[in-house]
Amino acid sequence: MKSSKIPPATITRLSFYYRKLEHLIKEDVNIVSSEKLAQLCDVNPAQIRKDLAYFGEFGVRGVGYYSTELLGEIRKILGLNRIWRMAVVGIGNLGSALVAHDNFHKHGYHFVAAFDSDSRKVDQILQHGLKISHIDALPQVLAEMESVDIGVIATPAGWAQDVANRLFKTGIRSLLNFAPIQILTPEGCMVQNVDFTVKLDNLAYFLTSELTRDDPL
Amino acid sequence: MKSSKIPPATITRLSFYYRKLEHLIKEDVNIVSSEKLAQLCDVNPAQIRKDLAYFGEFGVRGVGYYSTELLGEIRKILGLNRIWRMAVVGIGNLGSALVAHDNFHKHGYHFVAAFDSDSRKVDQILQHGLKISHIDALPQVLAEMESVDIGVIATPAGWAQDVANRLFKTGIRSLLNFAPIQILTPEGCMVQNVDFTVKLDNLAYFLTSELTRDDPL
Repeated sequence: MKSSKIPPATITRLSFYYRKLEHLIKEDVNIVSSEKLAQLCDVNPAQIRKDLAYFGEFGVRGVGYYSTELLGEIRKILGLNRIWRMAVVGIGNLGSALVAHDNFHKHGYHFVAAFDSDSRKVDQILQHGLKISHIDALPQVLAEMESVDIGVIATPAGWAQDVANRLFKTGIRSLLNFAPIQILTPEGCMVQNVDFTVKLDNLAYFLTSELTRDDPL
Repeated sequence: MKSSKIPPATITRLSFYYRKLEHLIKEDVNIVSSEKLAQLCDVNPAQIRKDLAYFGEFGVRGVGYYSTELLGEIRKILGLNRIWRMAVVGIGNLGSALVAHDNFHKHGYHFVAAFDSDSRKVDQILQHGLKISHIDALPQVLAEMESVDIGVIATPAGWAQDVANRLFKTGIRSLLNFAPIQILTPEGCMVQNVDFTVKLDNLAYFLTSELTRDDPL
Protein backbone atom coordinates (compact mmCIF):
# COMPACT_ATOMS: atom_id res chain seq x y z
CA MET A 1 0.00 0.00 0.00
CA LYS A 2 1.31 3.44 -0.88
CA SER A 3 0.12 5.20 2.22
CA SER A 4 1.57 8.55 1.20
CA LYS A 5 -0.86 8.81 -1.70
CA ILE A 6 -4.01 8.22 0.32
CA PRO A 7 -6.12 11.37 0.73
CA PRO A 8 -6.59 12.50 4.34
CA ALA A 9 -10.34 12.66 3.68
CA THR A 10 -10.29 8.90 3.02
CA ILE A 11 -8.78 8.32 6.45
CA THR A 12 -11.43 10.48 8.08
CA ARG A 13 -14.15 8.55 6.27
CA LEU A 14 -12.65 5.21 7.30
CA SER A 15 -12.92 6.47 10.85
CA PHE A 16 -16.64 7.13 10.31
CA TYR A 17 -17.20 3.75 8.68
CA TYR A 18 -15.47 2.18 11.66
CA ARG A 19 -17.82 3.85 14.13
CA LYS A 20 -20.91 2.89 12.13
CA LEU A 21 -19.70 -0.71 11.91
CA GLU A 22 -19.20 -0.81 15.68
CA HIS A 23 -22.76 0.39 16.02
CA LEU A 24 -24.10 -2.18 13.52
CA ILE A 25 -22.27 -5.01 15.28
CA LYS A 26 -23.81 -3.95 18.58
CA GLU A 27 -27.19 -4.29 16.87
CA ASP A 28 -26.26 -7.76 15.58
CA VAL A 29 -26.07 -6.70 11.94
CA ASN A 30 -23.57 -9.22 10.53
CA ILE A 31 -23.67 -8.23 6.88
CA VAL A 32 -24.07 -4.75 5.44
CA SER A 33 -24.26 -3.68 1.79
CA SER A 34 -22.13 -0.77 0.63
CA GLU A 35 -25.42 1.02 -0.17
CA LYS A 36 -26.62 0.65 3.40
CA LEU A 37 -23.28 1.59 4.94
CA ALA A 38 -23.07 4.56 2.57
CA GLN A 39 -26.51 5.74 3.60
CA LEU A 40 -25.63 5.47 7.28
CA CYS A 41 -22.41 7.41 6.73
CA ASP A 42 -23.93 10.01 4.45
CA VAL A 43 -21.63 9.35 1.48
CA ASN A 44 -22.28 7.61 -1.83
CA PRO A 45 -21.60 3.87 -2.20
CA ALA A 46 -18.91 4.41 -4.87
CA GLN A 47 -17.00 6.51 -2.35
CA ILE A 48 -16.91 3.68 0.19
CA ARG A 49 -15.70 1.20 -2.44
CA LYS A 50 -13.05 3.65 -3.63
CA ASP A 51 -11.85 4.42 -0.09
CA LEU A 52 -11.50 0.73 0.74
CA ALA A 53 -9.88 -0.09 -2.62
CA TYR A 54 -6.75 1.80 -1.52
CA PHE A 55 -6.16 -0.96 0.99
CA GLY A 56 -7.30 -4.12 -0.73
CA GLU A 57 -10.42 -6.02 -1.66
CA PHE A 58 -13.13 -6.22 0.92
CA GLY A 59 -16.66 -7.51 0.86
CA VAL A 60 -18.37 -10.04 -1.36
CA ARG A 61 -20.03 -8.99 -4.62
CA GLY A 62 -23.81 -9.26 -4.36
CA VAL A 63 -23.61 -9.82 -0.60
CA GLY A 64 -21.90 -6.87 1.01
CA TYR A 65 -19.41 -6.58 3.83
CA TYR A 66 -19.15 -8.83 6.83
CA SER A 67 -19.36 -6.24 9.62
CA THR A 68 -16.86 -7.81 12.01
CA GLU A 69 -14.38 -8.60 9.26
CA LEU A 70 -14.49 -5.09 7.80
CA LEU A 71 -14.26 -3.57 11.28
CA GLY A 72 -11.14 -5.63 11.92
CA GLU A 73 -9.58 -4.60 8.60
CA ILE A 74 -10.23 -0.89 9.18
CA ARG A 75 -8.93 -1.25 12.72
CA LYS A 76 -5.66 -2.59 11.29
CA ILE A 77 -5.48 0.08 8.58
CA LEU A 78 -5.99 2.95 11.01
CA GLY A 79 -3.74 1.39 13.62
CA LEU A 80 -6.46 1.09 16.23
CA ASN A 81 -5.43 -2.45 17.21
CA ARG A 82 -3.23 -1.04 19.97
CA ILE A 83 -3.24 1.53 22.76
CA TRP A 84 -2.09 5.06 21.88
CA ARG A 85 -0.44 6.87 24.75
CA MET A 86 -1.15 10.58 25.12
CA ALA A 87 0.25 13.51 27.10
CA VAL A 88 -2.06 16.48 27.67
CA VAL A 89 -0.83 19.99 28.41
CA GLY A 90 -3.18 22.52 30.03
CA ILE A 91 -5.40 21.19 32.80
CA GLY A 92 -7.97 23.97 32.85
CA ASN A 93 -11.64 23.26 32.20
CA LEU A 94 -10.98 21.88 28.73
CA GLY A 95 -8.04 19.67 29.72
CA SER A 96 -9.98 18.31 32.70
CA ALA A 97 -12.98 17.61 30.49
CA LEU A 98 -10.82 15.77 27.96
CA VAL A 99 -9.20 13.56 30.59
CA ALA A 100 -12.64 12.71 31.98
CA HIS A 101 -14.30 12.09 28.60
CA ASP A 102 -15.16 8.40 28.11
CA ASN A 103 -14.65 8.43 24.35
CA PHE A 104 -10.86 8.58 24.41
CA HIS A 105 -10.38 5.60 26.66
CA LYS A 106 -13.07 3.62 24.86
CA HIS A 107 -11.29 4.08 21.53
CA GLY A 108 -7.87 3.12 22.87
CA TYR A 109 -6.51 6.63 23.46
CA HIS A 110 -5.11 6.74 26.98
CA PHE A 111 -3.85 9.79 28.82
CA VAL A 112 -0.61 8.78 30.52
CA ALA A 113 0.81 12.21 31.39
CA ALA A 114 -0.67 15.63 32.23
CA PHE A 115 1.06 18.99 32.54
CA ASP A 116 0.12 22.48 33.66
CA SER A 117 2.01 25.69 34.30
CA ASP A 118 0.12 26.31 37.56
CA SER A 119 2.25 24.97 40.44
CA ARG A 120 -0.86 24.65 42.62
CA LYS A 121 -2.17 21.92 40.34
CA VAL A 122 1.02 19.85 40.45
CA ASP A 123 0.52 16.37 42.01
CA GLN A 124 -3.26 16.60 41.79
CA ILE A 125 -4.73 13.27 40.71
CA LEU A 126 -7.16 13.12 37.77
CA GLN A 127 -9.20 10.27 36.23
CA HIS A 128 -7.46 6.91 35.84
CA GLY A 129 -4.89 7.92 38.49
CA LEU A 130 -3.30 10.48 36.17
CA LYS A 131 -1.06 12.89 38.09
CA ILE A 132 -0.46 16.50 37.00
CA SER A 133 3.20 17.51 36.58
CA HIS A 134 4.64 20.97 36.05
CA ILE A 135 5.15 21.93 32.41
CA ASP A 136 8.84 22.63 33.10
CA ALA A 137 9.26 18.99 34.12
CA LEU A 138 7.91 17.77 30.79
CA PRO A 139 11.23 16.59 29.29
CA GLN A 140 12.19 14.62 32.41
CA VAL A 141 8.72 13.14 33.01
CA LEU A 142 8.42 11.98 29.40
CA ALA A 143 12.00 10.68 29.32
CA GLU A 144 11.32 8.53 32.37
CA MET A 145 8.19 6.88 30.99
CA GLU A 146 7.41 4.46 28.19
CA SER A 147 7.16 6.41 24.96
CA VAL A 148 4.25 8.78 24.43
CA ASP A 149 2.66 8.83 20.96
CA ILE A 150 0.42 11.87 20.89
CA GLY A 151 0.50 15.28 22.55
CA VAL A 152 -2.77 17.07 23.31
CA ILE A 153 -2.74 20.86 23.60
CA ALA A 154 -5.50 22.30 25.76
CA THR A 155 -3.80 25.59 26.67
CA PRO A 156 -4.85 29.13 25.74
CA ALA A 157 -3.84 30.16 22.20
CA GLY A 158 -0.88 32.23 23.38
CA TRP A 159 0.85 29.18 24.89
CA ALA A 160 0.09 26.63 22.21
CA GLN A 161 3.14 27.07 19.96
CA ASP A 162 5.57 27.02 22.89
CA VAL A 163 3.95 23.88 24.23
CA ALA A 164 4.01 22.29 20.76
CA ASN A 165 7.73 23.03 20.47
CA ARG A 166 8.40 21.44 23.85
CA LEU A 167 6.45 18.33 22.84
CA PHE A 168 8.16 18.02 19.44
CA LYS A 169 11.52 18.33 21.21
CA THR A 170 10.81 15.16 23.21
CA GLY A 171 10.30 13.25 19.96
CA ILE A 172 6.51 13.34 19.86
CA ARG A 173 5.41 13.68 16.22
CA SER A 174 1.63 13.94 16.49
CA LEU A 175 -0.42 16.62 18.17
CA LEU A 176 -4.10 17.15 18.74
CA ASN A 177 -4.54 20.89 19.12
CA PHE A 178 -7.59 22.48 20.76
CA ALA A 179 -6.14 26.01 20.87
CA PRO A 180 -7.58 28.34 18.21
CA ILE A 181 -4.22 28.88 16.50
CA GLN A 182 -2.27 27.36 13.61
CA ILE A 183 0.74 25.45 14.96
CA LEU A 184 4.01 25.64 13.01
CA THR A 185 4.86 21.99 12.45
CA PRO A 186 8.27 20.53 11.61
CA GLU A 187 8.59 18.09 8.71
CA GLY A 188 7.63 14.54 9.59
CA CYS A 189 5.17 15.70 12.22
CA MET A 190 1.40 16.11 12.09
CA VAL A 191 -0.99 18.41 13.92
CA GLN A 192 -4.74 17.92 13.88
CA ASN A 193 -6.73 20.96 14.92
CA VAL A 194 -10.05 20.58 16.66
CA ASP A 195 -12.41 23.37 15.71
CA PHE A 196 -15.90 22.97 17.13
CA THR A 197 -17.23 25.76 14.96
CA VAL A 198 -16.98 23.72 11.75
CA LYS A 199 -19.81 21.57 13.10
CA LEU A 200 -21.74 24.72 13.97
CA ASP A 201 -21.38 25.96 10.39
CA ASN A 202 -23.25 22.82 9.30
CA LEU A 203 -26.07 23.71 11.68
CA ALA A 204 -26.07 27.33 10.55
CA TYR A 205 -26.35 26.19 6.94
CA PHE A 206 -29.13 23.77 7.83
CA LEU A 207 -31.13 26.51 9.55
CA THR A 208 -30.39 29.02 6.79
CA SER A 209 -31.41 26.70 3.96
CA GLU A 210 -34.56 25.72 5.86
CA LEU A 211 -35.44 29.38 6.22
CA THR A 212 -34.85 29.89 2.49
CA ARG A 213 -37.01 26.89 1.66
CA ASP A 214 -39.82 28.12 3.91
CA ASP A 215 -39.85 31.45 2.08
CA PRO A 216 -42.89 31.84 -0.19
CA LEU A 217 -41.14 32.63 -3.47
CA MET B 1 -30.50 26.60 -5.40
CA LYS B 2 -31.75 23.17 -4.41
CA SER B 3 -30.26 23.07 -0.95
CA SER B 4 -31.70 19.67 -0.14
CA LYS B 5 -29.51 18.03 -2.78
CA ILE B 6 -26.24 19.44 -1.54
CA PRO B 7 -24.05 16.83 0.14
CA PRO B 8 -23.24 17.55 3.80
CA ALA B 9 -19.56 17.02 2.98
CA THR B 10 -19.75 19.99 0.60
CA ILE B 11 -20.97 22.18 3.45
CA THR B 12 -18.15 20.99 5.70
CA ARG B 13 -15.63 21.77 2.95
CA LEU B 14 -17.12 25.24 2.38
CA SER B 15 -16.52 25.83 6.06
CA PHE B 16 -12.84 24.88 5.61
CA TYR B 17 -12.49 27.08 2.51
CA TYR B 18 -13.99 29.91 4.51
CA ARG B 19 -11.39 29.56 7.26
CA LYS B 20 -8.52 29.37 4.80
CA LEU B 21 -9.81 32.47 3.00
CA GLU B 22 -10.00 34.37 6.28
CA HIS B 23 -6.39 33.39 6.84
CA LEU B 24 -5.31 34.43 3.33
CA ILE B 25 -7.03 37.80 3.66
CA LYS B 26 -5.19 38.40 6.92
CA GLU B 27 -1.98 37.80 4.97
CA ASP B 28 -3.09 40.26 2.27
CA VAL B 29 -3.58 37.59 -0.39
CA ASN B 30 -6.23 39.17 -2.61
CA ILE B 31 -6.43 36.58 -5.36
CA VAL B 32 -6.08 32.83 -4.98
CA SER B 33 -6.19 30.13 -7.67
CA SER B 34 -8.35 27.07 -7.12
CA GLU B 35 -5.12 25.05 -7.25
CA LYS B 36 -3.60 27.05 -4.39
CA LEU B 37 -6.79 27.04 -2.32
CA ALA B 38 -7.14 23.31 -2.95
CA GLN B 39 -3.60 22.69 -1.79
CA LEU B 40 -4.17 24.70 1.38
CA CYS B 41 -7.39 22.81 2.10
CA ASP B 42 -6.01 19.40 1.23
CA VAL B 43 -8.58 18.62 -1.49
CA ASN B 44 -8.25 18.54 -5.27
CA PRO B 45 -9.04 21.66 -7.32
CA ALA B 46 -11.92 19.98 -9.17
CA GLN B 47 -13.57 19.39 -5.79
CA ILE B 48 -13.51 23.09 -4.92
CA ARG B 49 -14.99 24.03 -8.28
CA LYS B 50 -17.68 21.36 -7.93
CA ASP B 51 -18.55 22.41 -4.38
CA LEU B 52 -18.91 26.05 -5.38
CA ALA B 53 -20.84 25.21 -8.57
CA TYR B 54 -23.81 24.13 -6.44
CA PHE B 55 -24.26 27.76 -5.51
CA GLY B 56 -23.34 29.71 -8.63
CA GLU B 57 -20.34 30.84 -10.62
CA PHE B 58 -17.42 32.21 -8.69
CA GLY B 59 -13.92 33.23 -9.67
CA VAL B 60 -12.47 34.33 -12.96
CA ARG B 61 -11.07 31.81 -15.44
CA GLY B 62 -7.29 32.06 -15.66
CA VAL B 63 -7.19 34.38 -12.65
CA GLY B 64 -8.68 32.62 -9.66
CA TYR B 65 -10.91 33.76 -6.86
CA TYR B 66 -10.95 37.19 -5.30
CA SER B 67 -10.45 36.25 -1.64
CA THR B 68 -12.77 38.83 -0.08
CA GLU B 69 -15.50 38.25 -2.65
CA LEU B 70 -15.44 34.47 -2.25
CA LEU B 71 -15.34 34.82 1.53
CA GLY B 72 -18.44 37.00 1.37
CA GLU B 73 -20.25 34.54 -0.89
CA ILE B 74 -19.48 31.54 1.32
CA ARG B 75 -20.49 33.58 4.36
CA LYS B 76 -23.88 34.15 2.74
CA ILE B 77 -24.24 30.51 1.66
CA LEU B 78 -23.47 29.13 5.11
CA GLY B 79 -25.51 31.80 6.85
CA LEU B 80 -22.60 33.25 8.76
CA ASN B 81 -23.60 36.84 8.01
CA ARG B 82 -25.52 36.95 11.27
CA ILE B 83 -25.23 36.04 14.94
CA TRP B 84 -26.37 32.55 15.95
CA ARG B 85 -27.74 32.35 19.47
CA MET B 86 -26.94 29.26 21.51
CA ALA B 87 -28.09 27.67 24.76
CA VAL B 88 -25.68 25.29 26.47
CA VAL B 89 -26.76 22.59 28.90
CA GLY B 90 -24.25 21.09 31.34
CA ILE B 91 -21.82 23.53 32.94
CA GLY B 92 -19.20 21.06 34.09
CA ASN B 93 -15.62 21.28 32.88
CA LEU B 94 -16.59 20.86 29.24
CA GLY B 95 -19.48 23.35 29.28
CA SER B 96 -17.33 25.91 31.09
CA ALA B 97 -14.53 25.41 28.57
CA LEU B 98 -16.95 25.87 25.66
CA VAL B 99 -18.40 29.10 27.03
CA ALA B 100 -14.87 30.44 27.56
CA HIS B 101 -13.52 29.32 24.17
CA ASP B 102 -12.77 32.30 21.89
CA ASN B 103 -13.58 30.50 18.66
CA PHE B 104 -17.35 30.48 19.10
CA HIS B 105 -17.71 34.18 19.69
CA LYS B 106 -15.23 34.99 16.94
CA HIS B 107 -17.28 33.04 14.39
CA GLY B 108 -20.59 34.60 15.39
CA TYR B 109 -21.81 31.84 17.70
CA HIS B 110 -22.90 33.44 20.97
CA PHE B 111 -23.95 31.66 24.13
CA VAL B 112 -27.06 33.44 25.40
CA ALA B 113 -28.32 30.86 27.92
CA ALA B 114 -26.71 28.25 30.16
CA PHE B 115 -28.31 25.47 32.20
CA ASP B 116 -27.23 22.93 34.76
CA SER B 117 -28.99 20.44 37.02
CA ASP B 118 -26.82 21.41 40.02
CA SER B 119 -28.71 24.01 42.08
CA ARG B 120 -25.45 25.26 43.58
CA LYS B 121 -24.39 26.53 40.14
CA VAL B 122 -27.61 28.49 39.54
CA ASP B 123 -27.05 32.27 39.20
CA GLN B 124 -23.28 31.87 38.78
CA ILE B 125 -22.00 34.26 36.12
CA LEU B 126 -19.82 32.93 33.27
CA GLN B 127 -17.99 34.66 30.40
CA HIS B 128 -19.84 37.47 28.60
CA GLY B 129 -22.16 37.90 31.62
CA LEU B 130 -23.87 34.59 30.94
CA LYS B 131 -25.89 33.42 33.97
CA ILE B 132 -26.50 29.75 34.79
CA SER B 133 -30.14 28.74 35.20
CA HIS B 134 -31.55 25.49 36.53
CA ILE B 135 -32.35 22.91 33.84
CA ASP B 136 -35.95 22.69 35.08
CA ALA B 137 -36.38 26.40 34.29
CA LEU B 138 -35.33 25.84 30.67
CA PRO B 139 -38.79 26.24 29.08
CA GLN B 140 -39.52 29.49 30.94
CA VAL B 141 -36.05 30.99 30.46
CA LEU B 142 -36.07 30.28 26.73
CA ALA B 143 -39.68 31.46 26.34
CA GLU B 144 -38.79 34.78 27.90
CA MET B 145 -35.82 35.52 25.66
CA GLU B 146 -35.33 36.29 21.99
CA SER B 147 -35.30 33.03 20.07
CA VAL B 148 -32.40 30.63 20.50
CA ASP B 149 -31.11 28.91 17.35
CA ILE B 150 -28.82 26.15 18.55
CA GLY B 151 -28.69 23.95 21.63
CA VAL B 152 -25.33 22.66 22.87
CA ILE B 153 -25.25 19.48 24.95
CA ALA B 154 -22.29 19.18 27.31
CA THR B 155 -23.84 16.78 29.81
CA PRO B 156 -22.79 13.21 30.61
CA ALA B 157 -24.08 10.63 28.10
CA GLY B 158 -26.89 9.44 30.37
CA TRP B 159 -28.55 12.86 30.37
CA ALA B 160 -28.08 13.82 26.75
CA GLN B 161 -31.29 12.40 25.24
CA ASP B 162 -33.46 13.89 27.97
CA VAL B 163 -31.80 17.27 27.52
CA ALA B 164 -32.18 17.01 23.73
CA ASN B 165 -35.90 16.30 24.13
CA ARG B 166 -36.33 19.33 26.38
CA LEU B 167 -34.53 21.54 23.85
CA PHE B 168 -36.52 20.22 20.87
CA LYS B 169 -39.71 20.86 22.86
CA THR B 170 -38.92 24.58 23.03
CA GLY B 171 -38.73 24.71 19.23
CA ILE B 172 -34.94 24.49 18.88
CA ARG B 173 -34.15 22.44 15.77
CA SER B 174 -30.37 22.26 15.80
CA LEU B 175 -28.12 20.66 18.37
CA LEU B 176 -24.38 20.39 18.81
CA ASN B 177 -23.83 17.27 20.89
CA PHE B 178 -20.63 16.60 22.83
CA ALA B 179 -21.99 13.59 24.74
CA PRO B 180 -20.73 10.24 23.43
CA ILE B 181 -24.20 9.02 22.47
CA GLN B 182 -26.41 9.01 19.37
CA ILE B 183 -29.34 11.41 19.91
CA LEU B 184 -32.76 10.37 18.56
CA THR B 185 -33.72 13.32 16.39
CA PRO B 186 -37.22 14.28 15.24
CA GLU B 187 -37.85 15.04 11.58
CA GLY B 188 -36.89 18.57 10.55
CA CYS B 189 -34.20 18.74 13.22
CA MET B 190 -30.45 18.25 12.98
CA VAL B 191 -27.87 17.06 15.47
CA GLN B 192 -24.14 17.37 14.88
CA ASN B 193 -22.00 15.16 17.08
CA VAL B 194 -18.57 16.27 18.14
CA ASP B 195 -16.23 13.31 18.44
CA PHE B 196 -12.65 14.27 19.21
CA THR B 197 -11.44 10.75 18.54
CA VAL B 198 -12.01 11.01 14.77
CA LYS B 199 -9.11 13.48 14.68
CA LEU B 200 -7.05 11.10 16.79
CA ASP B 201 -7.69 8.29 14.29
CA ASN B 202 -5.99 10.49 11.68
CA LEU B 203 -2.94 10.80 13.95
CA ALA B 204 -2.97 7.07 14.69
CA TYR B 205 -3.03 6.33 10.96
CA PHE B 206 -0.24 8.84 10.34
CA LEU B 207 1.96 7.21 12.98
CA THR B 208 1.03 3.70 11.84
CA SER B 209 1.76 4.34 8.16
CA GLU B 210 5.04 6.03 9.07
CA LEU B 211 6.02 2.96 11.05
CA THR B 212 5.10 0.75 8.12
CA ARG B 213 7.16 2.87 5.77
CA ASP B 214 10.17 2.74 8.07
CA ASP B 215 10.04 -1.05 8.03
CA PRO B 216 12.80 -2.60 5.96
CA LEU B 217 10.72 -4.77 3.64
